[in-house]
Amino acid sequence: MAGPISDASVTPLRHPGRLTVYLCDTARIDHHRLCDVIVQRARAAGLRGATVLRGIEGFGRSGDIHTTRLLDVSDHLPAAVVIVDDEERLREFAHRNDDCFHGRLVTLESLEIVDNSG
Amino acid sequence: MAGPISDASVTPLRHPGRLTVYLCDTARIDHHRLCDVIVQRARAAGLRGATVLRGIEGFGRSGDIHTTRLLDVSDHLPAAVVIVDDEERLREFAHRNDDCFHGRLVTLESLEIVDNSG
Amino acid sequence: MAGPISDASVTPLRHPGRLTVYLCDTARIDHHRLCDVIVQRARAAGLRGATVLRGIEGFGRSGDIHTTRLLDVSDHLPAAVVIVDDEERLREFAHRNDDCFHGRLVTLESLEIVDNSG
Repeated sequence: MAGPISDASVTPLRHPGRLTVYLCDTARIDHHRLCDVIVQRARAAGLRGATVLRGIEGFGRSGDIHTTRLLDVSDHLPAAVVIVDDEERLREFAHRNDDCFHGRLVTLESLEIVDNSG
Repeated sequence: MAGPISDASVTPLRHPGRLTVYLCDTARIDHHRLCDVIVQRARAAGLRGATVLRGIEGFGRSGDIHTTRLLDVSDHLPAAVVIVDDEERLREFAHRNDDCFHGRLVTLESLEIVDNSG
Repeated sequence: MAGPISDASVTPLRHPGRLTVYLCDTARIDHHRLCDVIVQRARAAGLRGATVLRGIEGFGRSGDIHTTRLLDVSDHLPAAVVIVDDEERLREFAHRNDDCFHGRLVTLESLEIVDNSG
């Protein structure tokens, strides 16, 4: 696929990192699912990759514990959106998309990209 | 929600980290699901947040490979409980709750909390 | 269970790390599911543990966004295979199994093993 993702994929990242935002599976922004919006914006920004991992239980800032066992449908379950790119680009992405990230637990850690082509 | 979680949320962490414990989805302690117990104790301890991520396959210390494809029900599947707080508090939490963590793979890494309010 | 896993479990890791490979749930290699093959090879190599985490949405190198919401079956969903062992062993594992990892996003980060027995 042409576009910023392919271009970004071939350029080595100088300070690779992983941004993780913990959110509720059903959180919405402007009638769209928040995790969808974050993934779409990450893609539009040309970031290296994004994955939404499904949680089955958890609590965050609100202190409520949500679990699949108490609910018939997957309502209000935790999810973690994981985005990999350059650390500085990830911080900028989080700041530029404050409407998505504000008030949520957002973490960033350094990592190494393992490239077998070297 | 009042309580230690809300208080902890407003205080910046000095050395933020993430504790991950890999366990079996169906592991129990005193007739309760182990991942429930860990999440509840993390909440009671006022830790910043906890999420149980669902695994579909894996092996740990026992060396058995469990997978959704061999089983009709989600029996003996892996899960990862992820807890974010100060590194030292996470180490203390693991030691204090040795009945939950003993003999399991438990990892801890440093990370940065991304705070858009700054 | 006897074998390399049990032996590896008792030996402390000098530079523990976590390797994560992001892939498509349905990716195959020689007619076998890729995530199965990676977990089986990790086990055969005596690595400490491996877990396949289920994603519900995401994009990687191809730039396509896959989601559970557009599909009736869990087709082409993202997954993350997480393997914990010594960093150098993880790099070697990735290089030796280039047929599984080539062209995929593979990350490695340092971490600490929390051992309550100390």
